[in-house]
Amino acid sequence: MDSEQLREYGHRMVDFIADYYKTIETFPVRSQVQPGYLHNLLPESAPDHPETVEQVLDDVKEKILPGVTHWQSPTFFAYYPANSSVAGFLGEMLSAGLGIVGFSWVSSPAATELEMIVLDWLAKLLNLPEQFLSKGNGGGVIQGTASEAILVVLIAARDKVLRSVGKKALEKLVVYSSDQTHSSLLKACQIAGIHLENCRMLKTDSSTNYALRPESLQEAVSKDLEAGLIPFFLCGTVGTTSSTAVDPLAALGKIAKSNEIWFHVDAAYAGSACICPEYRQYLDGVETADSFNMNAHKWFLTNFDCSLLWVKDQYALTEALSTNPEYLKNKPSQANLVVDYKDWQIPLGRRFRSLKLWMVLRLYGAETLKSYIRNHIKLAKDLEQLVSQDPNFEVVTPSIFSLVCFRMVPVDNDEKTCNNRNRNLLEAVNSSGKLFISHTTLSGKFVLRFAIGAPLTEAKHVKEAWKVIQEKASYLLASQVK
Amino acid sequence: MDSEQLREYGHRMVDFIADYYKTIETFPVRSQVQPGYLHNLLPESAPDHPETVEQVLDDVKEKILPGVTHWQSPTFFAYYPANSSVAGFLGEMLSAGLGIVGFSWVSSPAATELEMIVLDWLAKLLNLPEQFLSKGNGGGVIQGTASEAILVVLIAARDKVLRSVGKKALEKLVVYSSDQTHSSLLKACQIAGIHLENCRMLKTDSSTNYALRPESLQEAVSKDLEAGLIPFFLCGTVGTTSSTAVDPLAALGKIAKSNEIWFHVDAAYAGSACICPEYRQYLDGVETADSFNMNAHKWFLTNFDCSLLWVKDQYALTEALSTNPEYLKNKPSQANLVVDYKDWQIPLGRRFRSLKLWMVLRLYGAETLKSYIRNHIKLAKDLEQLVSQDPNFEVVTPSIFSLVCFRMVPVDNDEKTCNNRNRNLLEAVNSSGKLFISHTTLSGKFVLRFAIGAPLTEAKHVKEAWKVIQEKASYLLASQVK
Repeated sequence: MDSEQLREYGHRMVDFIADYYKTIETFPVRSQVQPGYLHNLLPESAPDHPETVEQVLDDVKEKILPGVTHWQSPTFFAYYPANSSVAGFLGEMLSAGLGIVGFSWVSSPAATELEMIVLDWLAKLLNLPEQFLSKGNGGGVIQGTASEAILVVLIAARDKVLRSVGKKALEKLVVYSSDQTHSSLLKACQIAGIHLENCRMLKTDSSTNYALRPESLQEAVSKDLEAGLIPFFLCGTVGTTSSTAVDPLAALGKIAKSNEIWFHVDAAYAGSACICPEYRQYLDGVETADSFNMNAHKWFLTNFDCSLLWVKDQYALTEALSTNPEYLKNKPSQANLVVDYKDWQIPLGRRFRSLKLWMVLRLYGAETLKSYIRNHIKLAKDLEQLVSQDPNFEVVTPSIFSLVCFRMVPVDNDEKTCNNRNRNLLEAVNSSGKLFISHTTLSGKFVLRFAIGAPLTEAKHVKEAWKVIQEKASYLLASQVK
Repeated sequence: MDSEQLREYGHRMVDFIADYYKTIETFPVRSQVQPGYLHNLLPESAPDHPETVEQVLDDVKEKILPGVTHWQSPTFFAYYPANSSVAGFLGEMLSAGLGIVGFSWVSSPAATELEMIVLDWLAKLLNLPEQFLSKGNGGGVIQGTASEAILVVLIAARDKVLRSVGKKALEKLVVYSSDQTHSSLLKACQIAGIHLENCRMLKTDSSTNYALRPESLQEAVSKDLEAGLIPFFLCGTVGTTSSTAVDPLAALGKIAKSNEIWFHVDAAYAGSACICPEYRQYLDGVETADSFNMNAHKWFLTNFDCSLLWVKDQYALTEALSTNPEYLKNKPSQANLVVDYKDWQIPLGRRFRSLKLWMVLRLYGAETLKSYIRNHIKLAKDLEQLVSQDPNFEVVTPSIFSLVCFRMVPVDNDEKTCNNRNRNLLEAVNSSGKLFISHTTLSGKFVLRFAIGAPLTEAKHVKEAWKVIQEKASYLLASQVK
């Protein structure tokens, strides 16, 4: 670690990355390589002796970039976005540069304290209830991903109830969510040893735009109680992965509360929008939640990974996840003067991730971030209108945030052929390299997902992408329809 | 994300970080701030409008750096090192710059394929058995930390045995390790729902330098089998956290094999040393292991986080951790043509972490990395000799790698006073700001841990640090001893 070598090579890498962004629109958005492509391009073993930065950067250009799917491209509309930004990038650089590991307060006090402060800032921007702030029993913490966030609160909830009913009751614990809930909930259940037959993925349909009906929850809970089971965890979602459905938090929370069920709210994607007053309504009822999660690395200009989790009762987390080996003991921790985030998460080590979120908030400011969100939502509204004007297409669920769910309409009510055609359309569009979209199914319909949210996306990119979709659709219709 | 703004600010940040390394020796190594110091230095809420990069960097200097414990300082000797390097830093920059999320092959093929290749490279450097390579049923994967590595293999092992004996047998599952094993094992057991009274942390002592005796394991397994319990997981360690004890892998593995116990080898710290032929002996017996873990982010010049896990049976992992929601389905995955690392880990999302490891291997080369390791081990040997020459001190366990465990000797066999004195010495040394060391206990003795391994550490830093320790010790002896 020579400071002058770092300076020289660091500058070179900055230029490499800046040049990448300058030319990002020239790459096929979804990588077009075949499985195993890299194996023959790289040697069988590590070199014995140093190679030069030029050699490595040449290889990045020639061998790595063709295999990259360009998430930061302005025509990346698949999944949900994973925002990168100048501020987020600077924060990542600084975090990597300082090279600290902030598991306990003492291992780098600024890492813990900045995280507490910045999570409070964001809680205020989201107008979260006071109990989520760090000054009382609650507080926020940066997890890697929403999967880890839901796992740690599930474990906290599990252990809280098992402490009172005894750990042999594990097989009686029941989890609730809609069938639209992210797959990370089932994975967390699997990890935590919750019996999968006790995971109630309650059916939703288009009548509620795929939101969970409180009556379904109440019915399921009552049935489980009658059967002697123990309802203990509910996940509500604000902005589901398939179609941005918003579960009715207040009504769900009421049922959770009266049955002593831990209520987790997953707003991984749509949480960002709720800093705008006009979208805050979608969080109404969050005051009944025990925990709340939003991914700053999705749609909030903060580089992956940076998943924000707030809890009302930090002790539920720490009772489940604390370790206290001799080699980590230290005075401030033993005296309970500080927060040790190692006990709020799965791993021991942790990066200084609050730096990038702090930089995003300071270098852009709340008002700019709101405009950023609003612009994407406007682009989605515009696209939704374009789709609805084309008789070959239909909007499948109304767009609430920045995702548009649509499909080519069935001909003669033939849903099977329609699904196949939409599947073929997806492949044709993505193989063009001009844009990348993804799909889902809703009530058996194969649906195309067009998620707007890359920082570089402008109106022209959406319009051009839509044209490509229309062209490919016309071609499919001309060549395949009877 | 404007490429010219990224270029301008990126260059500024490179200079900021290079300057930090130039002056790193001027900071107190362990931050000397008091709990809560940052709260009064920062505003109560996020700004509404953008601030400048200058303002933020000034705040980093004035408000953040005082609260940083400087892991990259040449006199950071606490815990185990968390290496940063120019190559590792460049890899982090590139990963943040590309901003991809590589959960499935299709989401960025290069991320998955480079990871497979680089993990194969390292497996070859470590001379791991062929079954750990990616060409068969095995393979390597980058986890965030050793805690996550041990959790995923514990879950894999748990589910493998529960598939054959039924999930109600969870309460009968037994885990084995020495009492020196890292706390992450117990935490993983807690998360996975293993009953803590079934976790056998087998006693070790100085007679084996705190290595696990195979006889202890055999005895415990036999007793548990007699009691109708189900032994299912063994963790052996190469280089324990307290004192770098090395468990006898071959003998332990034999017992594990004959009892169908999953054998995990944790070489988080010391694994790096085993790329040198003269230290490879400490891995003898790894061929009996089901999984093997080494942290490239500790002592291998690769920035945190980068924990390397190899398994012989990737399907044990994926059967336990797979999810397959509609919105992530894609042709190459459905056709089983590719590896989707999301099913080898807890989170869904993942960064392009193989880039930094690839850059470390290429920009330094295997021979340079071996010299790097050997130099630290030599410095530790030299320090061990200095300690043993000072009548006020004793070496507590022989140094094998780059950790020296020592203490001030007891006067008149008074162990209690001795422990207090060493505790006071630790605090005096760390409060000086000149170096940072940590501690552990071994057989009731309070022991100082001096872990060499920061990239900037040279012989002079170790010598000066030792002088500070001697001075503080003399002062304590003069002022406190009867």
